[in-house]
Amino acid sequence: MNASEFRRRGKEMVDYIADYLEGIERRQVYPDVEPGYLRPLIPDTAPQEPETFEDIIRDVEKIIMPGVTHWHSPYFFAYFPTASSYPAMLADMLSGAIGCIGFTWASSPACTELETVMMDWLGKMLELPEAFLAGRSGEGGGVIQGSASEATLMALLAARTKVIQRLQETSPELTQAAIMEKLVAYSSDQAHSSVERAALIGAVKIKSIPSDGNFAMRASALQEALEQDKAAGLIPFFVVATLGTTSCCSFDNLLEVGPICNKEHLWLHIDAAYAGSAFICPEFRHLLNGVEFADSFNFNPHKWLLVNFDCSAMWVKKRADLTGAFKLDPVYLKHSHQDSGLITDYRHWQIPLGRRFRSLKMWFVFRMYGVKRLQAYIRKHVQLSREFESLLLQDPRFEICAEVTLGLVCFRLKGPNQLSITLLQKINSAKKIHLVPCHLRSKFVLRFAICSRVVESAHVREAWEHLQELADLVLSEAKE
Amino acid sequence: MNASEFRRRGKEMVDYIADYLEGIERRQVYPDVEPGYLRPLIPDTAPQEPETFEDIIRDVEKIIMPGVTHWHSPYFFAYFPTASSYPAMLADMLSGAIGCIGFTWASSPACTELETVMMDWLGKMLELPEAFLAGRSGEGGGVIQGSASEATLMALLAARTKVIQRLQETSPELTQAAIMEKLVAYSSDQAHSSVERAALIGAVKIKSIPSDGNFAMRASALQEALEQDKAAGLIPFFVVATLGTTSCCSFDNLLEVGPICNKEHLWLHIDAAYAGSAFICPEFRHLLNGVEFADSFNFNPHKWLLVNFDCSAMWVKKRADLTGAFKLDPVYLKHSHQDSGLITDYRHWQIPLGRRFRSLKMWFVFRMYGVKRLQAYIRKHVQLSREFESLLLQDPRFEICAEVTLGLVCFRLKGPNQLSITLLQKINSAKKIHLVPCHLRSKFVLRFAICSRVVESAHVREAWEHLQELADLVLSEAKE
Repeated sequence: MNASEFRRRGKEMVDYIADYLEGIERRQVYPDVEPGYLRPLIPDTAPQEPETFEDIIRDVEKIIMPGVTHWHSPYFFAYFPTASSYPAMLADMLSGAIGCIGFTWASSPACTELETVMMDWLGKMLELPEAFLAGRSGEGGGVIQGSASEATLMALLAARTKVIQRLQETSPELTQAAIMEKLVAYSSDQAHSSVERAALIGAVKIKSIPSDGNFAMRASALQEALEQDKAAGLIPFFVVATLGTTSCCSFDNLLEVGPICNKEHLWLHIDAAYAGSAFICPEFRHLLNGVEFADSFNFNPHKWLLVNFDCSAMWVKKRADLTGAFKLDPVYLKHSHQDSGLITDYRHWQIPLGRRFRSLKMWFVFRMYGVKRLQAYIRKHVQLSREFESLLLQDPRFEICAEVTLGLVCFRLKGPNQLSITLLQKINSAKKIHLVPCHLRSKFVLRFAICSRVVESAHVREAWEHLQELADLVLSEAKE
Repeated sequence: MNASEFRRRGKEMVDYIADYLEGIERRQVYPDVEPGYLRPLIPDTAPQEPETFEDIIRDVEKIIMPGVTHWHSPYFFAYFPTASSYPAMLADMLSGAIGCIGFTWASSPACTELETVMMDWLGKMLELPEAFLAGRSGEGGGVIQGSASEATLMALLAARTKVIQRLQETSPELTQAAIMEKLVAYSSDQAHSSVERAALIGAVKIKSIPSDGNFAMRASALQEALEQDKAAGLIPFFVVATLGTTSCCSFDNLLEVGPICNKEHLWLHIDAAYAGSAFICPEFRHLLNGVEFADSFNFNPHKWLLVNFDCSAMWVKKRADLTGAFKLDPVYLKHSHQDSGLITDYRHWQIPLGRRFRSLKMWFVFRMYGVKRLQAYIRKHVQLSREFESLLLQDPRFEICAEVTLGLVCFRLKGPNQLSITLLQKINSAKKIHLVPCHLRSKFVLRFAICSRVVESAHVREAWEHLQELADLVLSEAKE
């Protein structure tokens, strides 16, 4: 395919995409296929000779689309949102065409420098403390990671290196293994599974702090665990506080937890993967109060800020902590500006070496929306979840299981779990809407997350009516 | 921006991209900018109100392009190639539009299933042993990672878990820490820095095996290190063999190293990040002989197989080893097919949780090129490097520093390193071509890598004439 055919096919693809997204409401949100559906539909081996674009695009409708879960359908209320916007898609096209691999400053200066400045822009939108910004001479700064999991892992690894160095300074006889054996990380029992995973990868213990009645980590429970572990000769070193947990969007109490971490010299990492986007609205910014106690902070613009996946924004107060975690400098990656202190080699900030020009997506989205429209977008989603909450409150058969702060409503049928389990089965068989469950303590709970860029009040009400009908069925069957 | 504006702007972007790539030869391959160039060119904060697409696209030319290293210029001979093709770009546009996050089978069945089948297609193109394929009932299979670094890390973590479990089975009193303190990983002194990094992350020792005169890891050196370490009470557990090293594209001797790993119960991971693409050609397939001894194998179609970044292909013989490294199953990610044994949840195969629909790129590229044209593409690059080699051989001032097997030529000016260092400085000041250096033992060496999809013999000859002129200058200055 040469440039002239790309001009033609690219424009056809643009129309295909616009058609897909304009018509997404008419597609069944969750597919009918069974495991193994795809293999029989395509050949066993790659073709020897070229096939035509027409063949392929026909197969997209025939083979791919029937197996797609349509995350951008207005009937998709599962997980958390994943971002989708036209400006981000345009930027991603450009990023693919430039196709630079921005592992060092020299490998593509624009890729590195736009990222640093965009992370400052976004940090300012969130009113992050100055210490997290790179500015012209700051010690902190931001980096785009692929996912919140990677951000947590990077923070844990940086904290691990830092505590080992600190302890070895005062006790040079301690081996790395002797220290690591005693290291303990902490997060709430509501934290995302990627936190436990980071600890497994980093080969350190992790303890789950019991959350309070609002599913929040509080000072007392953390302090108790710390005292217990220190008394047992262990070495606490890392705490992950979550703002907007995956199960129910609860918020750990930063203003309580933060000062403890600072006093005890524990690295505090904040995971606000979903909720972080909301902090660009002044009325939600208070949820981030206490960020000043943190060493690192992360959230996913690729969830709720209209920047298509992947774009996970991470800031640190001291970039040297991150790069110090495992800086290695082979000759083929050295370049003349490297030691100038002016430049950033992002490969030291992340797990992979290679990286796309992802900041273009932020630049396009922030400029084509402007901060005010981004705020309006967040507010609309919060408004819709409040609308769903108020509908629920009018039906005494249901209960709301956690405070509705942003775009997620956790609810269930009152009574035994089996009622809600059956309700979910009926939802998943009907495939009119899509949502996923969670456990809150012993309760089986349904999560209704406002996700789509194009979801409106009408869709929420339609979903509610559907849920009510299915609940009628569940409850009448249960009576029989 | 609504769908109708996207139709217009998307088509403009398609033309912008086609113009960029058609005209890339006329752009200076390496930028003139100095560190910090970008910040003064753009505002300090994001705009409150929306800006127009025209404003932004104008700024792309004014602010971004002057700072871009043009990786797809035919004058770019640095690092290794990074893939760029129109079919991959079309697929990536579609992937962005579908915008599903394929962490489980249920989160988008097509995303998972196409990946499994595409990895089988590619495995067959490489004639991988059956054990690495998923097929309908295999224990192995492939996964798309973001980068070779992540593949190495995943392999190391799987191997670490496996050896700990094995040792604890026979000696339940051994703690994880007690075992980890003794674990040793091995790679050649020519291995990529990401291997050392994986060991740092995994908190295990890593030893560098001295390579032979052809920069290859051989049995004797590995065996010697193993014996030494075992005698010292350490526990060897993991070996990375490299096919096509970053510095000089040398090949570790798999047929020697493989049997040792099998005999000693060491996990053997093969990193063929660059060279792997060549194995689709029968005449280069012998370089992969010995892969049957490996537990995991990885290469980057996003380097040399026309599938745009990111697409790093990794296969394992036992998928349970990978998923066993840290399988965690929170309720919100459970789904009804999970325990059927028929389905794959790729989140257990990788570091991040989220993942794009990347197999679309493989599908489009394999079908729109066909295997024969992909082979022809590889052959053309190898032919061009041989042409450059033959030019070098005619000029007695230069020496070739490593065998030219694929698309990389390592060379230098005979005599003291300073001559080649000065030559590189002149290349980088002239900015007519772009390349990077490496060290081979004590020698400072220039790497000439055939990279661009559109590079032709004429560009190679032009680069060579340029190099000769600069060499004249260097040598005459040195005489003065």
